[in-house]
Amino acid sequence: MPDRATIDMESWVCPAPLRGVPNIVMGHGGGGAMTGELIEHLFLPAFGPAADSQLSDSAVLAVGEVRLAFSTDSFVVKPTTFPGGTIGDLAVNGTVNDLAMSGAAPLAMSTAFILEEGFRLDELAPIAEAMGAAASAAGVKLVTGDTKVVDMGHGDGVYLNTSGIGVLDRHTDIRPQRASVGDAVIVSGDIGEHGIAVMSCRDGLEFATAVTSDTAPLHGLVAAMLGTGVDLHALRDPTRGGVAAALNEIARTAGVGIELVERALPIPAAVRDACGLLGLDPLYVANEGKLLAVVPADDADQILEAMRDHPLGAQATVIGHCVADHPGMLVTRTALGGTRVVDLPIGEQLPRIC
Amino acid sequence: MPDRATIDMESWVCPAPLRGVPNIVMGHGGGGAMTGELIEHLFLPAFGPAADSQLSDSAVLAVGEVRLAFSTDSFVVKPTTFPGGTIGDLAVNGTVNDLAMSGAAPLAMSTAFILEEGFRLDELAPIAEAMGAAASAAGVKLVTGDTKVVDMGHGDGVYLNTSGIGVLDRHTDIRPQRASVGDAVIVSGDIGEHGIAVMSCRDGLEFATAVTSDTAPLHGLVAAMLGTGVDLHALRDPTRGGVAAALNEIARTAGVGIELVERALPIPAAVRDACGLLGLDPLYVANEGKLLAVVPADDADQILEAMRDHPLGAQATVIGHCVADHPGMLVTRTALGGTRVVDLPIGEQLPRIC
Repeated sequence: MPDRATIDMESWVCPAPLRGVPNIVMGHGGGGAMTGELIEHLFLPAFGPAADSQLSDSAVLAVGEVRLAFSTDSFVVKPTTFPGGTIGDLAVNGTVNDLAMSGAAPLAMSTAFILEEGFRLDELAPIAEAMGAAASAAGVKLVTGDTKVVDMGHGDGVYLNTSGIGVLDRHTDIRPQRASVGDAVIVSGDIGEHGIAVMSCRDGLEFATAVTSDTAPLHGLVAAMLGTGVDLHALRDPTRGGVAAALNEIARTAGVGIELVERALPIPAAVRDACGLLGLDPLYVANEGKLLAVVPADDADQILEAMRDHPLGAQATVIGHCVADHPGMLVTRTALGGTRVVDLPIGEQLPRIC
Repeated sequence: MPDRATIDMESWVCPAPLRGVPNIVMGHGGGGAMTGELIEHLFLPAFGPAADSQLSDSAVLAVGEVRLAFSTDSFVVKPTTFPGGTIGDLAVNGTVNDLAMSGAAPLAMSTAFILEEGFRLDELAPIAEAMGAAASAAGVKLVTGDTKVVDMGHGDGVYLNTSGIGVLDRHTDIRPQRASVGDAVIVSGDIGEHGIAVMSCRDGLEFATAVTSDTAPLHGLVAAMLGTGVDLHALRDPTRGGVAAALNEIARTAGVGIELVERALPIPAAVRDACGLLGLDPLYVANEGKLLAVVPADDADQILEAMRDHPLGAQATVIGHCVADHPGMLVTRTALGGTRVVDLPIGEQLPRIC
């Protein structure tokens, strides 16, 4: 095994593909710029013509008259149980949400376990039970699976992959590319809870907080939003990399600027406190039961009303707009009227949490 | 981490669920009886009503007029490169083959990487290239993906999950349950190559052999077999646990006996030699480019002809039949006319190889 690669992020200026790093570093899994570079400069060229589009979180396929969404996600969270959830419900809800963000109703899910030799069955059972309960709650069937075991000392007890198939209405067309200047940006509720909950119980980082993970399946909320008949332009669940990563991606993909009103951001006091303690920006902290919606400004009130009628959207609120200025960039406008650029995270701002 | 569980397989007699073992052991990932017990006694009860049928290798879903096959597989092979292939082509072909065994044409695939911090990018790139080449060769698109990174010392460089969607003809009905007394059992070619190739280059076990992995996508061979119009009853790719595990599963599921003719088994001399050296039975050694077909005896010649016209079926041959005796059991008939029971493997007979 080669030596650990070290990167001084503060002074790092390397425009070259993959930033000249010869090895995988934690940042490649952070869902930010380094993950994007790995996909763009390694996976896509290597896959060649077999790769379809940009290997995004969820793909839409046409099969005869049927339109399907297809998504995959691996979960390597430590610890596997945290305030408000376990790796099991997280894995089910995460893939349900990836499907829901294209407007699909989840239909079927696969579950693949990579288990570490020596992992206790009485730790595994509650994780599997949480998966079953989450799947039942989301109305999705667990239809096929796989189990592998790796030598003790490798793995981390359990790594989990879920892949999912959802069904799309013929007319649904929700994608980041459709975000347009003037659109309102809505968040479905408080941000930062999942990341803070997981960090509060990580080895070496324990701290007291009342924050619990927001892990939840969002397809019902999306169905309620679709039920309004409003033309939803883009949806994203702000998981790894948080609101910052999700909105940066939408801004870059659509070629619009996005401006958030800092005062409008729903950040619970406990999340704000924990972020202060840890030196983190809540915009970069992961959520697992929230969505960001980009909708025509004139329809924002109608969408908000539908969202607030749903338990998972009760605190929905407009946090900003798409603008013509600074295309591809996310900025927040402060209470004093200044603006601050919120860049795409490079690698891991946080301990790995999803 | 609890102490390592030890099992004396020779003297082990424990009818209780999960054999009283409190921890995950390597055998739970071996694709044999212990994997089956983990699914039956832990995953299925825990998943509850969310679990559909028996969580088999591949599920068939009806969506409107469309019939889909859906499959998932994780790959944790060590080393990641071996004579005849890499974890990359193995992962693509493995999921193509799981889909093909239900008669489906592969349509789209997801790729999820769990990478170890410190893994060299110049080791990762050829693996990704092998995936792209295998997907192109199989005519399947890589449409969605995920990348996670785990701390150095965990993982094993790279773990890989592929999940796949295939499309089934309206009338295709290929499943183990349909194996019937009198049916012929066909194998598409030589057995034992993949397992021996991987073992020949494992740390601490290196030995000289000319055997290379048979990893290959089998959907084209299956399409040629379907093209005959013969009613194929059951198909299986004999991967983990080899021909023994695959045929035991068919026998148990269908409630038939299966009798193989030992002399008819196509075992290359080099595989036989290596198995002799290692004390292994070739029937338990993994294959990654072979299939077993259970077809009406009267149609066996027609199927063999179609198979032999395809490069991956050139050595196809009948190796046995389904019989009314000993339902649920697999036996081989020796050259001297005796029979030998070939049981479902309990756990790992082999180093982990897929």
